[in-house]
Amino acid sequence: MTAHASHSEHEIADVDAYMVRLGEQARAAAGRMRRVDTAAKNAALLAMAAHLDQARGEVLAANAKDLERGRAGGLDAALLDRLALDDARLDAMIEGLHQVAALPDPVGEIDGLRSRPSGIQVGQMRVPLGVIGIIYESRPNVTMEAASLCLKSGNAAVLRGGSEARESNAAIAACIRAGLERAGLPEGAVQVVATTDRAAVGRLIDMPEYVDVIIPRGGKSLIERISRDASVPVIKHLDGVCHVYLDATADPDKALAIAVNAKTQRYGTCNTMETLLVDAPVAESLLPRLAEAYAAHGVELRGCERTRTILPDIAVATEADWAAEYLAPVLALRVVDGIDAAMAHIERYSSRHTDAIVTEHYGLARRFLAEVDSSSVMVNASTRFADGFEYGLGAEIGISTDRLHVRGPVGLEGLTTRKYVVLGDGQIRR
Amino acid sequence: MTAHASHSEHEIADVDAYMVRLGEQARAAAGRMRRVDTAAKNAALLAMAAHLDQARGEVLAANAKDLERGRAGGLDAALLDRLALDDARLDAMIEGLHQVAALPDPVGEIDGLRSRPSGIQVGQMRVPLGVIGIIYESRPNVTMEAASLCLKSGNAAVLRGGSEARESNAAIAACIRAGLERAGLPEGAVQVVATTDRAAVGRLIDMPEYVDVIIPRGGKSLIERISRDASVPVIKHLDGVCHVYLDATADPDKALAIAVNAKTQRYGTCNTMETLLVDAPVAESLLPRLAEAYAAHGVELRGCERTRTILPDIAVATEADWAAEYLAPVLALRVVDGIDAAMAHIERYSSRHTDAIVTEHYGLARRFLAEVDSSSVMVNASTRFADGFEYGLGAEIGISTDRLHVRGPVGLEGLTTRKYVVLGDGQIRR
Repeated sequence: MTAHASHSEHEIADVDAYMVRLGEQARAAAGRMRRVDTAAKNAALLAMAAHLDQARGEVLAANAKDLERGRAGGLDAALLDRLALDDARLDAMIEGLHQVAALPDPVGEIDGLRSRPSGIQVGQMRVPLGVIGIIYESRPNVTMEAASLCLKSGNAAVLRGGSEARESNAAIAACIRAGLERAGLPEGAVQVVATTDRAAVGRLIDMPEYVDVIIPRGGKSLIERISRDASVPVIKHLDGVCHVYLDATADPDKALAIAVNAKTQRYGTCNTMETLLVDAPVAESLLPRLAEAYAAHGVELRGCERTRTILPDIAVATEADWAAEYLAPVLALRVVDGIDAAMAHIERYSSRHTDAIVTEHYGLARRFLAEVDSSSVMVNASTRFADGFEYGLGAEIGISTDRLHVRGPVGLEGLTTRKYVVLGDGQIRR
Repeated sequence: MTAHASHSEHEIADVDAYMVRLGEQARAAAGRMRRVDTAAKNAALLAMAAHLDQARGEVLAANAKDLERGRAGGLDAALLDRLALDDARLDAMIEGLHQVAALPDPVGEIDGLRSRPSGIQVGQMRVPLGVIGIIYESRPNVTMEAASLCLKSGNAAVLRGGSEARESNAAIAACIRAGLERAGLPEGAVQVVATTDRAAVGRLIDMPEYVDVIIPRGGKSLIERISRDASVPVIKHLDGVCHVYLDATADPDKALAIAVNAKTQRYGTCNTMETLLVDAPVAESLLPRLAEAYAAHGVELRGCERTRTILPDIAVATEADWAAEYLAPVLALRVVDGIDAAMAHIERYSSRHTDAIVTEHYGLARRFLAEVDSSSVMVNASTRFADGFEYGLGAEIGISTDRLHVRGPVGLEGLTTRKYVVLGDGQIRR
């Protein structure tokens, strides 16, 4: 009897041996997936969508078991909401599979092919990374998203979801396997880890012979722990302490619209603004209008001393506020003297996720774009645009705040690497 | 008195504190270097070249001391050759600085700027990595090469050369500092570690707060040790076990020329062919001609059993030969049955540096390019072309056999990362 990722947990006594088996199967599948054509990958994605559509009953029943166990175990409302599936969320998962199938295949794309004096032509071809391990928390729809992006980019994936979602993930994994089988792709192309034993995570991040890169998705403490312990390279997203700077030349209406949208369009996302910087000459005109708008949204304001001379009723912002990722209807406000002071604040406190300037001054816009060292830098746009769909990547597996390999939203391209290709007619080196 | 990288070794009692000070200075300089314009960077490179030209006497005198100490210490001839400087090598270093000054500045380049349905424009801008630590062995010209590439790409560099070259490196470091000063750039932009204490390396690779990436250059054991111990990301090159496969449809003259050039043009380089695979139908016609050509170059052949039925006088190749990076006039030969057997051999034994096919068959060329998973994959060209100059990168800091970030020859672009830039007119997210 061979090992299947579908094995229920009680069958997996030796987690170490189980993970090595998944690793071997993934490595073997990666060699095959590298060569699979676009049509076969798309066929697998569409077959997964069809299977998920047919298996709605099973998936929702499995999810109900997870929810029941979660409620009994005292999971909080936010976690239960992330865990819950319904027909609308299944529709979105199915639609997501169709969208990824419709995206261009990055594999095989050759950039910059040019002739050299020796007579050879040199270019760079996109190829899959190999085996990608993804570690995530309770949202079961991530299972299908991660599977689809890894598959379309020609990689093999090993997916390890949170234990809260184990029944849901097993049901989704069955649809993934059925889709792979229907398209004639190896089962090892996407494997869902079937044990909730935490030792499985420790093994997954420590087998560079089988896994080429780890992408953790979840809270900061999970990601820090994985980055510290992994011997496999990690593509990670830590926190999002994002800034908007309203320059003195900003169009007041744009300034107001962007500052309100960046904070209030959603509170819990990493691209939400956490600190608003206001240029001193416009503080008196803008701050009262901003305070009124934020009050209407129920946003609590915390300001520097200069802010509080204009808005005396708000709380004082402390050092901790400048560094805070609130993920909540709370905003820190600071009055600054010009772009240099604004950029100095950003240099010190930004998590280098996304920072924006609102200005009508060409030179300042140009300076802000060049000098602010964040994964996304914006002029006259809301920080909430920093995501893969809005940027046109089609989909994203996360947002990288690393510097190496990929930075910002990670789509199919971020899941590939490039090799040099050289075309000659018998050239030799002199 | 402030710390200078020029301090002679006896002044550095506390290596840990010294390295932290270099790190702090590098981090501060990196913030400045990110914003420095192309003209200032080029001025610094040309000033370094001028200073090196003026300081030939001092540099050669320092090098003579290193050579004397090396000879007394029993360094072998190859190491002494790598360590030695003369006027021709100084000319090459000066010419190298001029070449890097003439290269396009990658910083600020924006790729793929396109409009999105929301009205924003999104593109990706190249920016420096930050602080780069380079650890290398006895060749003192690497000091200037590494300095020039890191500087042109807008990074700050901390350079740690081998102790054999300490006097030479100190003399070159003085030219680097003078060039930075002349161009008004911070001294922290390029710092040469002034202690030969090995603890300095241990500290350099373990201060992610000051160093963004480590590039080791040198032997495999040095690189493996650094990769294992580093908490900073490493861009590395391990070994070069490169293959050429002569397909049955290959033009015999091209096959012969490439097979001979890939092995004999230089023996000690990582892109030298170490195993030659010959398609069975042409083995009888090609192997005797090849053996004759290799004999003329004094290359020792070791063959599989099928090879030895045609060339009975050569030694038998063992499992160890297929995995060997000889870096010497030795070649392993294997007769294979077609491209699938050739690619299976490459998949198993290649170090994924550079592999080539010689063929006139369009479909096989296309398959080899797509399916061989090496940092450079070639058709009808010598593996010896796999380097930054031949590929048109202008210069290279090394060749990466990693998969993430940069793969193959690493030029200025490999020393940068990309951030997203978003241009709007007040767009907010709906």
